[in-house]
Amino acid sequence: MGDGLKEACGLCAVYGHESAAYNVFLGLQNLQHRGQESCGIVSSDGKQIFSRIRMGLVAENFDKKHFLANGNDNVLHGNIASGHVRYSTTGNSDISNAQPLQLNTKYGELVISHNGNITNAIATKNKLVQTGAIFKTTTDSEVVGHLIARSQSPTLAGAIMEALKQLEGAFCFTFMTKNELYAARDPNGFRPLSIGRLGNSVLIVSETCALDVINAKYERDVEPGELIVITQESWPGEPNYRGVRFASKVTQSFCLFELIYFARPDSVVRGIPVAQVRLELGKALAREYPVDADLVFPVPDSGNYAAIGFSQQSGIPYLPAYVRNHYVGRTFIEPNQQDRETQVDLKLNVIRPFVAGKRVVVVDDSVVRGNTARRRVTQLKELGATAVHVRISCPPLKNPCYYGIDFPTKKELIAANKSIEEIKAFVGADSLGYLSMETSLNVAASMSQGFCTACWTGKYPTKITDVSLNLLTKKT
Amino acid sequence: MGDGLKEACGLCAVYGHESAAYNVFLGLQNLQHRGQESCGIVSSDGKQIFSRIRMGLVAENFDKKHFLANGNDNVLHGNIASGHVRYSTTGNSDISNAQPLQLNTKYGELVISHNGNITNAIATKNKLVQTGAIFKTTTDSEVVGHLIARSQSPTLAGAIMEALKQLEGAFCFTFMTKNELYAARDPNGFRPLSIGRLGNSVLIVSETCALDVINAKYERDVEPGELIVITQESWPGEPNYRGVRFASKVTQSFCLFELIYFARPDSVVRGIPVAQVRLELGKALAREYPVDADLVFPVPDSGNYAAIGFSQQSGIPYLPAYVRNHYVGRTFIEPNQQDRETQVDLKLNVIRPFVAGKRVVVVDDSVVRGNTARRRVTQLKELGATAVHVRISCPPLKNPCYYGIDFPTKKELIAANKSIEEIKAFVGADSLGYLSMETSLNVAASMSQGFCTACWTGKYPTKITDVSLNLLTKKT
Amino acid sequence: MGDGLKEACGLCAVYGHESAAYNVFLGLQNLQHRGQESCGIVSSDGKQIFSRIRMGLVAENFDKKHFLANGNDNVLHGNIASGHVRYSTTGNSDISNAQPLQLNTKYGELVISHNGNITNAIATKNKLVQTGAIFKTTTDSEVVGHLIARSQSPTLAGAIMEALKQLEGAFCFTFMTKNELYAARDPNGFRPLSIGRLGNSVLIVSETCALDVINAKYERDVEPGELIVITQESWPGEPNYRGVRFASKVTQSFCLFELIYFARPDSVVRGIPVAQVRLELGKALAREYPVDADLVFPVPDSGNYAAIGFSQQSGIPYLPAYVRNHYVGRTFIEPNQQDRETQVDLKLNVIRPFVAGKRVVVVDDSVVRGNTARRRVTQLKELGATAVHVRISCPPLKNPCYYGIDFPTKKELIAANKSIEEIKAFVGADSLGYLSMETSLNVAASMSQGFCTACWTGKYPTKITDVSLNLLTKKT
Amino acid sequence: MGDGLKEACGLCAVYGHESAAYNVFLGLQNLQHRGQESCGIVSSDGKQIFSRIRMGLVAENFDKKHFLANGNDNVLHGNIASGHVRYSTTGNSDISNAQPLQLNTKYGELVISHNGNITNAIATKNKLVQTGAIFKTTTDSEVVGHLIARSQSPTLAGAIMEALKQLEGAFCFTFMTKNELYAARDPNGFRPLSIGRLGNSVLIVSETCALDVINAKYERDVEPGELIVITQESWPGEPNYRGVRFASKVTQSFCLFELIYFARPDSVVRGIPVAQVRLELGKALAREYPVDADLVFPVPDSGNYAAIGFSQQSGIPYLPAYVRNHYVGRTFIEPNQQDRETQVDLKLNVIRPFVAGKRVVVVDDSVVRGNTARRRVTQLKELGATAVHVRISCPPLKNPCYYGIDFPTKKELIAANKSIEEIKAFVGADSLGYLSMETSLNVAASMSQGFCTACWTGKYPTKITDVSLNLLTKKT
Repeated sequence: MGDGLKEACGLCAVYGHESAAYNVFLGLQNLQHRGQESCGIVSSDGKQIFSRIRMGLVAENFDKKHFLANGNDNVLHGNIASGHVRYSTTGNSDISNAQPLQLNTKYGELVISHNGNITNAIATKNKLVQTGAIFKTTTDSEVVGHLIARSQSPTLAGAIMEALKQLEGAFCFTFMTKNELYAARDPNGFRPLSIGRLGNSVLIVSETCALDVINAKYERDVEPGELIVITQESWPGEPNYRGVRFASKVTQSFCLFELIYFARPDSVVRGIPVAQVRLELGKALAREYPVDADLVFPVPDSGNYAAIGFSQQSGIPYLPAYVRNHYVGRTFIEPNQQDRETQVDLKLNVIRPFVAGKRVVVVDDSVVRGNTARRRVTQLKELGATAVHVRISCPPLKNPCYYGIDFPTKKELIAANKSIEEIKAFVGADSLGYLSMETSLNVAASMSQGFCTACWTGKYPTKITDVSLNLLTKKT
Repeated sequence: MGDGLKEACGLCAVYGHESAAYNVFLGLQNLQHRGQESCGIVSSDGKQIFSRIRMGLVAENFDKKHFLANGNDNVLHGNIASGHVRYSTTGNSDISNAQPLQLNTKYGELVISHNGNITNAIATKNKLVQTGAIFKTTTDSEVVGHLIARSQSPTLAGAIMEALKQLEGAFCFTFMTKNELYAARDPNGFRPLSIGRLGNSVLIVSETCALDVINAKYERDVEPGELIVITQESWPGEPNYRGVRFASKVTQSFCLFELIYFARPDSVVRGIPVAQVRLELGKALAREYPVDADLVFPVPDSGNYAAIGFSQQSGIPYLPAYVRNHYVGRTFIEPNQQDRETQVDLKLNVIRPFVAGKRVVVVDDSVVRGNTARRRVTQLKELGATAVHVRISCPPLKNPCYYGIDFPTKKELIAANKSIEEIKAFVGADSLGYLSMETSLNVAASMSQGFCTACWTGKYPTKITDVSLNLLTKKT
Repeated sequence: MGDGLKEACGLCAVYGHESAAYNVFLGLQNLQHRGQESCGIVSSDGKQIFSRIRMGLVAENFDKKHFLANGNDNVLHGNIASGHVRYSTTGNSDISNAQPLQLNTKYGELVISHNGNITNAIATKNKLVQTGAIFKTTTDSEVVGHLIARSQSPTLAGAIMEALKQLEGAFCFTFMTKNELYAARDPNGFRPLSIGRLGNSVLIVSETCALDVINAKYERDVEPGELIVITQESWPGEPNYRGVRFASKVTQSFCLFELIYFARPDSVVRGIPVAQVRLELGKALAREYPVDADLVFPVPDSGNYAAIGFSQQSGIPYLPAYVRNHYVGRTFIEPNQQDRETQVDLKLNVIRPFVAGKRVVVVDDSVVRGNTARRRVTQLKELGATAVHVRISCPPLKNPCYYGIDFPTKKELIAANKSIEEIKAFVGADSLGYLSMETSLNVAASMSQGFCTACWTGKYPTKITDVSLNLLTKKT
Repeated sequence: MGDGLKEACGLCAVYGHESAAYNVFLGLQNLQHRGQESCGIVSSDGKQIFSRIRMGLVAENFDKKHFLANGNDNVLHGNIASGHVRYSTTGNSDISNAQPLQLNTKYGELVISHNGNITNAIATKNKLVQTGAIFKTTTDSEVVGHLIARSQSPTLAGAIMEALKQLEGAFCFTFMTKNELYAARDPNGFRPLSIGRLGNSVLIVSETCALDVINAKYERDVEPGELIVITQESWPGEPNYRGVRFASKVTQSFCLFELIYFARPDSVVRGIPVAQVRLELGKALAREYPVDADLVFPVPDSGNYAAIGFSQQSGIPYLPAYVRNHYVGRTFIEPNQQDRETQVDLKLNVIRPFVAGKRVVVVDDSVVRGNTARRRVTQLKELGATAVHVRISCPPLKNPCYYGIDFPTKKELIAANKSIEEIKAFVGADSLGYLSMETSLNVAASMSQGFCTACWTGKYPTKITDVSLNLLTKKT
């Protein structure tokens, strides 16, 4: 019943493939769930940079003529390419902030893509502007570009490392030049970033599902605090990569919400199949909050696997009563609440004979503001459900995220302001169960270690400089 | 594994609502699965006709400014509106053929929307042209307009009835003027057409899911051979409708494939919940072709309910191994085969850990050419499935449809040219089961009577004049 | 000071040239002064018709990709092409009325272009509609298409002649099919229509300046009441044309206003160089209304040659004090008066030092409503002119035109409602001279014979059926 | 016969008017001859900056909805506005280089418009980049923005003066912030820049014809080496301006070619009516190169006044034989030679009867490469002229311009490579006369003093640092 959480961005870059931009195009489409506001692909043939950056979806903005060189003007030539899909968490939602960001520095043209949120961006930008820097965007991503341009390092790799050390917060970056590609992940590893291979070429992707679509092989994750350097020169014969550590201290705190909600179910994150985690959470939920009912169904698609897990554990038949209209986009992408209300009705229709006269269990991954949950429960009752039991496959969301998820403010988060019992009353459910923090971590921990749980617990694993300096106020 | 069947069209009209066009807009979006090539809405305020007809999807071509009258130029004013979504089965796929079709006749402006296929259209058009008629489109739908314009009847209702009697084949029509709305369904009732109510206003929709989205109430189906007349004048106080019979003989032959495949699972057709039919077909399939396996999953979304039914009957766990990318359209809408191949990979990704080392059952609603099925089976085996069992929830497709579904030619239909055993070998399945014709009809007949089964049996319930005169050759 | 007269249309067609559409494109640009609302080119390669019709100017809507076949989708192929530029005198100003008009008749695809105004169009259309005809436009041009489609003639040429005989008023037509081209001119020859040659190919153009631009040779005018038939079959080896008479009676009444105002000065009409006529009118004006002044200048560009003639005859120095901004369009094309007011100021700026303290003669070709003239005289006085003498190179306009010029109503024509003395007072001129009807005709008659002078004299050379039946009211 | 010279840019800014942006829109349209590649208007209401910058002409890119606040989204609000039209002499011709340039500096948002060419731009930019500056455009105009951003001055006015002192070459600038407007002109005063008044508001325009169009009053020119500061705060009650000198040394060297060719004839430059200068140059030309002929006419429109002057002095009748098509743009704006060739034929048509059998004098303002002149002379002879005498109203062009005119290279300038006699032979004229340098300066000097004649004499009045450092090579 997730009515308000947005992932920031998705990255996909290819080094050393003759159809570099085309593979980025395919990969980005499998990362579209990570950002639908803008998209961009920048490529290089070693001599020149080619670029296409637009508002909207990848499939709406790119077609054959951007990849096939039969006399077209707008082809993204070359064997290096870097792509980005974006939902804005900082900076306005307009084309000037769309990425990849292209900057002309003394190191030459620099193409930057960013997923995450830098928590000392404003403080750092303020210092740069006072000494004469001119920013062309309002994104936190540009800060790293100016830090690089101001570096005294003789090499770009040195300048990048110098710049990254000055950043706090969550960041996955790719940096592209006419000849080189770099990738970096913050020392906490908040967001996913993986390395793949397609033939000889090297790929950097936010999620492994972007590798699957082009039949590329997953190699390993970029490690927290690691800079990946991919060049042709270093390893004659074929492109290769090497990792260097830019961070002195590394603490694993991967965003647990990526596993529960954001990542695609077909991605493998830190070796964990995402769909499998959700099945297990659904089973745990059935154990923690059992109920007697006629059928169980998810709010599609985020609750799908948890609902199946719930059904398998409880023995209550799984029967999808919501039908999704495939011709309308994801609900919570829309810019204002009014549109969102309308689109929910368009997106999910209830199969009325399935719920009339039945006791139903509805499984979802989160309750944010509670309004959507309330509307759904109300509708199910109006259509004749005799009991509506709501089950949520994670703990109550109580705190804003400063690491790249676009959370509403604390004031808007229902669980920050109401007890479970009050929420149950507000949404009108006959019963309401949230998976406990302990169980959630146990399920996750059975597969991996080191998670950020700040949105539930309020324990932020890094400094949030811009907040402590009162430079950033909108999230509190 | 349906790689080639396209529904023709969807209709949605509203009479007597202050937001007539807006409700049509909402309804059409829930009928978008019936046609994605073009869309159009025409409205009337009693004095003037307003119109917006475009290539592409409803959501891409309409927004607030077309419905809200705050100084906008392009508002679809008035309390009558008629909308259409189209996939071309006759006529070229271009804007001149997009509907609703607007014609200026001696009866005034006439707005025609059509779902179906008229099987004596060419013969009738030829006669009209020889006596001086000038056609502006290449659709079969325009024929009825010319028949009406040539009528000697003093009233439009009389002219429409006269025209309808001259048509053969499958047709659902709405006819709109500045003040009136009519709806008609062919004497065999091949395609669905229902009447709904929203407050006082009357709605005509191809499927009931278009009523749900605007919380309108289903009243009844338009009967085969019936013309519905909706006017303000006849029933002072509020709009109402009355049905008149234009056909001397009526034979129920509803398209069974609508139930199995085309209609949305949340629609209720002739009183039957579509999802329920598919669940029962899946159970019957498990009984007819049992198999020992580790998991069962559908080709989404057409096989979803049949796969759940199969799982319930067989006890094999239901575990969706295909993940659908919601940012790309339905596979078989694309204009050429090459694009389609690419998009399949984009649309469905396999959760690799779910199938590796497993015996899987894949459930779908049809095999058309067999190429898609072959590609899917091959991919599952490459990803480590130890056995792939294919189950199809209807009989083998052997004959073209002349009633509004865009079938490939007989030459391309794999089941028209190969035995079941040969198909199994072609697609590479370990076993292949098609639901028998008898069982299919039994399942359907347990709920309703009178179906067209021509695509399986070759028994066409009407004359196909254009084919018998050799005027139409592409389908044979 | 012509603030309101609009030419209807321009025609350009080519038969038998490998770059047919491209030559039409060039020719149309030299006919752009005859219509700026919409433009279109339709071509044929003998098998298929290609078409591009748009609102706006030729140069805005066509470019290389429509003519060069290197992989483009929208090329206008073939060696026959017919083009049209339009200003609407009948029918709304929208794309459905833009020409060439394409109709599918029993004679095959028929492409119609029209310049002029048919004065029994409404009466004829009414009859056609009552017998079942469906019109797709609101233009008078479509009437001829329906007359052709209804003909019983076994040949298209016969059907065209039959149709033309039923028309009254002013018309120049081209008719194109996949293989043939026809051109026709009404029995009065109101509007110009000429035949040219480029190599072997035959051209039909509204004015000869369209021939010059492609270095084609002028052959002769299409005669009043003549149908030109251009075919490949008739004259093996090369395209040729022959003329047939469709009218029993012919009376020359060429629009004198074409010579004075509408036609381009570089066109040769009925053997008369248009610029030469205007020079002579200017000289006659200086003789008829001499004045003592410091300089003479035109309202550009329509008054240019008359002003030079006035200067040559009078000895008053010619010194253009108006500077035209070449980046804004012709004044009287704009849709509403408010825009027009603004654009006049943008279009013509006065060289202030040239008029300050001077007695000036301003020469123009017409005064329509008088508002523009008044504004210009006022401005010149404000800028310091000590006397402003207005000279008009034709008689006062007093009557509407029914033959293809978009005149204001009689009520708006200042000369229909005020005496010369009153007009002088209204515009604020120190003196005002209109060339007399007698002198105008004498100047023209020294070069050719048979003119329509209805807008000055009210003597219409044909029946105006639609007016006499009260079907057309807007012009009176 | 000017086939290749392009003015760089035009500026128009308004301070203190309630319709600031609308007046800039009108003014820019009268400056459109100074640049047709891109256009932009930026406005401020004191709190927020509004902006619209596009490729193409002003009239194509702006309309009512950008100025009238009735519910439109894109209105350019506020009482300060700055506009720009551009033809690129440095930087690529793309939207990122279109102006006004908007930069975020520590002094706030800074909006820069530039006409001219900075001759040490590359050297200065190189230094800035090495110390970390990131440029967003490839224009020389951005250099001044970075110099300002790096300044240590506590005020923006101080920073601007500091920056201007570091620049060489030709520049007219406007600088706009949310509340202020500045204008500056280089110490040589190469390009025109004037101050006007409309009611209380202050205007800055490149040419006075932009004042005329809005009935603003000319006050004075911005002086060479002067910075104009326009603020509300300084002079309570109404906006006002004051000039401060930023240059220690000033040398008048106004571009003589502005008078002869670029400026509009209705502009007054340094008190000189431009059309009057051209008339006098034409008279001087007739005295210096008399000839016996039947008629004299210009290449429109640049040669118009010189041709009239020639006629007045010589007594040869003035009879324009070229007719300009008003629906195609100025010849030498087109990006490549091939288009230009085609467009010339479209733009100017010859009135054939005027030249056949006649001895003609053709007057123009320049011969650049000679190809256009050759084509024109050839055409006139083909159309029957018995003698073609070419007269050019300035000396032969032999050297590139580094001050904001887009000249071809020296290699392409025909007069840099051929004698007058050779040029005459090349173009095929019967005689050819260029006005001498001495006479040209005498005519100009009779009205004003201090001109740049570098393109004729090679004497550049300033250092050209980028050329001397071999940073700029394309012009030599």
